[in-house]
Amino acid sequence: MDFELNTVEAGTVTSVHGFVAGAVSAGIKKQDVLDLAILHSITPCTAAGVFTSNAIKSAPVLINQQHLRDKKAQAIVVNSGYANACTADKGKNDAGQMAKSVAKKLDISPQDVLVASTGVIGIPLPMDKIQKGIEKIVLSGKGGHDLAKAMMTTDTFAKEIAVHIRIDQRGFTIGGVAKGAGMIHPNMATMLCFLATDAVVDAKFLQSALKKAVDKSFNMITIDGDTSPSDTVAILANGMAGNPTICEQNGELFQRAIDKVCIYLAKSIAKDGEGATKLIEVTVEGAISEQEARLAARTIASSPLVKTAIHGNDPNWGRIVSALGRSGANIKEDKLDAYIDYICVMEQGNPVPFDKEIAITVLKKQEVLLRVNLNLGHGKANAWGCDLSTEYVNINSAYTT
Amino acid sequence: MDFELNTVEAGTVTSVHGFVAGAVSAGIKKQDVLDLAILHSITPCTAAGVFTSNAIKSAPVLINQQHLRDKKAQAIVVNSGYANACTADKGKNDAGQMAKSVAKKLDISPQDVLVASTGVIGIPLPMDKIQKGIEKIVLSGKGGHDLAKAMMTTDTFAKEIAVHIRIDQRGFTIGGVAKGAGMIHPNMATMLCFLATDAVVDAKFLQSALKKAVDKSFNMITIDGDTSPSDTVAILANGMAGNPTICEQNGELFQRAIDKVCIYLAKSIAKDGEGATKLIEVTVEGAISEQEARLAARTIASSPLVKTAIHGNDPNWGRIVSALGRSGANIKEDKLDAYIDYICVMEQGNPVPFDKEIAITVLKKQEVLLRVNLNLGHGKANAWGCDLSTEYVNINSAYTT
Repeated sequence: MDFELNTVEAGTVTSVHGFVAGAVSAGIKKQDVLDLAILHSITPCTAAGVFTSNAIKSAPVLINQQHLRDKKAQAIVVNSGYANACTADKGKNDAGQMAKSVAKKLDISPQDVLVASTGVIGIPLPMDKIQKGIEKIVLSGKGGHDLAKAMMTTDTFAKEIAVHIRIDQRGFTIGGVAKGAGMIHPNMATMLCFLATDAVVDAKFLQSALKKAVDKSFNMITIDGDTSPSDTVAILANGMAGNPTICEQNGELFQRAIDKVCIYLAKSIAKDGEGATKLIEVTVEGAISEQEARLAARTIASSPLVKTAIHGNDPNWGRIVSALGRSGANIKEDKLDAYIDYICVMEQGNPVPFDKEIAITVLKKQEVLLRVNLNLGHGKANAWGCDLSTEYVNINSAYTT
Repeated sequence: MDFELNTVEAGTVTSVHGFVAGAVSAGIKKQDVLDLAILHSITPCTAAGVFTSNAIKSAPVLINQQHLRDKKAQAIVVNSGYANACTADKGKNDAGQMAKSVAKKLDISPQDVLVASTGVIGIPLPMDKIQKGIEKIVLSGKGGHDLAKAMMTTDTFAKEIAVHIRIDQRGFTIGGVAKGAGMIHPNMATMLCFLATDAVVDAKFLQSALKKAVDKSFNMITIDGDTSPSDTVAILANGMAGNPTICEQNGELFQRAIDKVCIYLAKSIAKDGEGATKLIEVTVEGAISEQEARLAARTIASSPLVKTAIHGNDPNWGRIVSALGRSGANIKEDKLDAYIDYICVMEQGNPVPFDKEIAITVLKKQEVLLRVNLNLGHGKANAWGCDLSTEYVNINSAYTT
């Protein structure tokens, strides 16, 4: 089989056939910025979703779980500013009302609308502003960029991508937008991500492919160890590419494409962590299982002591090994190799002398690679995080005041 | 039974009969400060210890576990500056050599010496300085304060206490010193704590009483979620009080006293977290078990988003509920009550309007109390932490450079 997987230039969700989007400044946030958006497919879609593991779930998450029972959806509405979490019955009514208003505007069933809200917890949504905003939104095939902006809270840049897969003479596209920044941690990061594809995909496979992609991407990033009640990754597949139905048996290329989109968006979220000045990529090899490799990689990437050391370009590698040690993964200290980028700092459990100045230079890069080999098995995983700066503290010490 | 439990004025480990201590500036640290100390009982002691759960254990921890197999010890040597962790075979030899040198100085068996090192990981100890330092140390009944100082790394104040229990006309004393500051997290905090008592205590009971006290105190504090390879809590009981042997059956008062000492020292560590400006006390009530209450309390106390909000006096209570939600404890959102000090912010899952200015005033106190009631059972626990400030980042981004 002849195929190509290419990134679409300036790609986003509306790079995908049949998807339109739009956003407005509805006045939900104090600043005059985009804060309300709709993504819409002109034809009905197969849909799938993965949601927060937090026991406290936002009203939109609860509604989406209901709306996805039939594995179909055709629109997503999202606001930033307030999360509609910890808002009791009023919150559930408000989320339901958002779905109804969008359904009326688009002439579809409320059951086919997914809802997402991000921002401050515990404060009811300004529903009058949201209702008026929904009416005002104009949808177009170029609206994906505005959608990506309207989702942002403390994000400093919009996160979007599209990839096109050409298979023989045909092909399909997957596009995605995401927001992250604070409260980001595995299972899942506090984050929203909406994916769109024109591929024809079996509903059951769509759900499993999405879950696999999320496990390799959004569940492997960490900003601060907190998990939000609002985490949502959803995908709509409208089938306009007209390809033979993709399912478990022939799904390898689709999986590869959705993985690529999700890993790109996840890394963008990590890079844009609140106050972050660089991306940290942690690779763990030689674990006794992939699960233990993931655990170890995430623990290292989320250690505040590792994150502050990287922020200060300090090759204090003992913190890497120490975080690894408390991860819960099986470790034999006398088998352990550790590297800062290409510099070996520990070999078979012995500290290896290295040139500190060179290590500092390596740590000053925009992307810092930490690697450990447990030399016990074949489990391997990557995790991504960011450094911890004083700016993180400044952002988060006065978020509502 | 008539009894009193009183705090000894300016009490420390050497407030206990038969214990002497001393410290020197051995030149292990760059600055001219106390960095090496010995605690010694003039008679042999029953001893017990609780050590780090990190899979990477420092050389001193490994040696102490061997030395405590006979449940006896008579001295503790401690240095700050370097942790002697991730130092492979040389590290184990060095820790053994420290025990031997102290044993020779005090004319006891090396097997009866416990060893502790705290500071940077992965760099061998300067053994020549340590050997000379051990020779120079002068022990006295007033040396406990110097011992407490010599253990400090980024601690800003020494942590020490002694309590005296008078039972009828007799009594005993328990004294303790501790260090903490960075890398502090449950199971266990990165910390050292040495306790001394003149009570006659059954060895098996001593170990179980110590473990219980640690679970209620040091395992309930958190600074940054990292756990060090060096965590050690050890107790020496020299029996000079001549009381009837304390064991499981009659140990209630002893347990109460050791709890008090450990909780005091643990709170002091939390209060003195790196960059901390205030102590956070989290109380969780109504959990279905004590274990779940502990999990919930620790998760809230360790949430970076909670810690930064408290730092900024921001009553962003959604972060408390959100951290609770991801703790793993069983929760029913519609049963949940939450309080910032005496201010109710959530009742039966509904947000309760409150005066933000009053909440900010309450948050400006030196000790901030957060309280949640899950209203599901009788499990209750306290956890202690500190706020997260820009100073934490500054301290930790240039620790070795």
